[in-house]
Amino acid sequence: MALIHGGDTEGFYMEYGYEPLDFSSNCNPLGAPEGVKLSICLSAEKIDSYPDPLCRRLCAAIAEYEAVLPQHVLCGGGSADLIDRLAYARRPGKTIVTAPSFSEYERAVRNTGGEIIYHPLREEDGYAVKDDILNRLTPDVDMLFLCNPNNPTGLTIEPNLLNKILDSCIRADILLVVDECFNGFLDQPGEHTLKFRLKDSRNLFILKAFTKIYGMAGVRLGYCLSTNGELLDAMRNAGQPWAVSSLAQAAGLAALKEHNYIEETRQLIRSERAYLVNALEALGMKVFKSEANYIFFRTAIPELTGRLRSMDILIRDCSGYIGLSAGSYRTAVRTHKENVRLVNSLSACIKEI
Amino acid sequence: MALIHGGDTEGFYMEYGYEPLDFSSNCNPLGAPEGVKLSICLSAEKIDSYPDPLCRRLCAAIAEYEAVLPQHVLCGGGSADLIDRLAYARRPGKTIVTAPSFSEYERAVRNTGGEIIYHPLREEDGYAVKDDILNRLTPDVDMLFLCNPNNPTGLTIEPNLLNKILDSCIRADILLVVDECFNGFLDQPGEHTLKFRLKDSRNLFILKAFTKIYGMAGVRLGYCLSTNGELLDAMRNAGQPWAVSSLAQAAGLAALKEHNYIEETRQLIRSERAYLVNALEALGMKVFKSEANYIFFRTAIPELTGRLRSMDILIRDCSGYIGLSAGSYRTAVRTHKENVRLVNSLSACIKEI
Repeated sequence: MALIHGGDTEGFYMEYGYEPLDFSSNCNPLGAPEGVKLSICLSAEKIDSYPDPLCRRLCAAIAEYEAVLPQHVLCGGGSADLIDRLAYARRPGKTIVTAPSFSEYERAVRNTGGEIIYHPLREEDGYAVKDDILNRLTPDVDMLFLCNPNNPTGLTIEPNLLNKILDSCIRADILLVVDECFNGFLDQPGEHTLKFRLKDSRNLFILKAFTKIYGMAGVRLGYCLSTNGELLDAMRNAGQPWAVSSLAQAAGLAALKEHNYIEETRQLIRSERAYLVNALEALGMKVFKSEANYIFFRTAIPELTGRLRSMDILIRDCSGYIGLSAGSYRTAVRTHKENVRLVNSLSACIKEI
Repeated sequence: MALIHGGDTEGFYMEYGYEPLDFSSNCNPLGAPEGVKLSICLSAEKIDSYPDPLCRRLCAAIAEYEAVLPQHVLCGGGSADLIDRLAYARRPGKTIVTAPSFSEYERAVRNTGGEIIYHPLREEDGYAVKDDILNRLTPDVDMLFLCNPNNPTGLTIEPNLLNKILDSCIRADILLVVDECFNGFLDQPGEHTLKFRLKDSRNLFILKAFTKIYGMAGVRLGYCLSTNGELLDAMRNAGQPWAVSSLAQAAGLAALKEHNYIEETRQLIRSERAYLVNALEALGMKVFKSEANYIFFRTAIPELTGRLRSMDILIRDCSGYIGLSAGSYRTAVRTHKENVRLVNSLSACIKEI
């Protein structure tokens, strides 16, 4: 069974007996907040009870945090769980995904027999979504996935265009799924979320996760926002009733209280992203504009991931993404000390060749 | 959204502000082992990394514990997650379930468009599976679910009959799914598992969970055993890649070392089951033979669950199970002190009417 996401840290550990420095996944470089870890320890005392299948306390807290109604929140075992439930519940026909984008949308839709249409993003546009996408939003289309900011590029969709896309989706009765899992890393998150338009339309579906912004990938906790109650009910029924462990529910409740941590995260990402972009450009990489906690770049250094791995560093080789070619990479933005180590290692790679 | 499993402990808590005494779910009354809780606390330190999607260390440990090959083990977020993945991967046609039995089999199969055929178990047989089931195992049948011991009755299938059922399934090319989640509570677990026949046939599929026997319902961890590698691969692909949290993987590794805990559990269940059976019969209940950690009984006491709830006790009303009628209940076997409280409360209910 092949691993298709990020670097295989477990495989590295099994080979070398220690952990690599992982720039291949793109979670919060500060690690999970201490309050979240403590909440997991405390809730471990009560794991002999089933989790609340309805995540009532957590949904209420998320609703307050997002300023939506609790009945418009559905939690899952990571946003990836919700993507699958959405596909199983909706069984979409023609579905548009951008190329490149996160591959789980496509996997989930294909599993339920849907047809995937790629909307290519062009290198000359810096992989930005442009308004030519509006021409594709015809009534024969069932669903559109947008990742905002996009993965692996880190680029947001211009807010006016995003609103126009939603308008077109409403007119053509297309379900617009906006993955906002990386929204919290943006300098101005509020300017890039569509959640304020949830009340306008049942055609809007927003995905969010605790995974990235709270450094909780190991816990499995995500949620979605929608005013389409029938769809949320169908998603609940599309998989097991206990999708979210009690550990994850406790961790989520604790995470939502971590306001300073989020502020600290944004400051760190802002300054370190600038540092890494400059350093990568100075090393001759072609670096694309990113607004998120990861950077997309292209380089001709042969076997780059292998060279870095031998220096105990994992980055993400993006040549397997639809719409990208060999020489495409994504690196996370981490702490300064770690970023310096990445830059020095890249520099050593260049000297090697 | 209605809750269909067990008592709603969270709803009780939200109403009263304290936890009920829960006989409605049927997990290990000893609670999770201390080693498991500790492992969760320790692994909380590393939740910023994604879990190993392949659960390599855990699968290896389970394989050793079950004396099977690691490639024949697939882990999931509870056995309920695996039931859904199995249905999505296999998309069964005609599927036989016993009535009564665990309702998740039916829900999962119906979600994928399968046809459910009920094989009724008769009250006069004590709800035992009898050899008339063999007549149903014809080539038009795609899948057969058996829960052994059965839920909610706690009765095992006679081992000779079980082997004959597997033989018939092999002949008719039916996938036999045996849910052995409660096997560990039996006095002689080795006499009731079919795992020794896994190597004979790709038609056998065994479900197991950490949920019940290790008191870990809140963690979400289950596994299945099969020599059908294509089916296991299809199940991996039927849902998200990170079905098992890193907390659950650590908890599972710790649980498998808890040999004394399992022995202590069996002794407790054996003596307390006998105590409860006698006490319920003395109170005039019709008690059915159980070999597991829960007891199925019938009584005409009106509104029994409501009466007990007002005494802060939850039991499982089984009248909603296909094949059962009003007045059917399941209670967990818990510690002696707790069981005494249940008996005294039942006695008080009888005096009330």
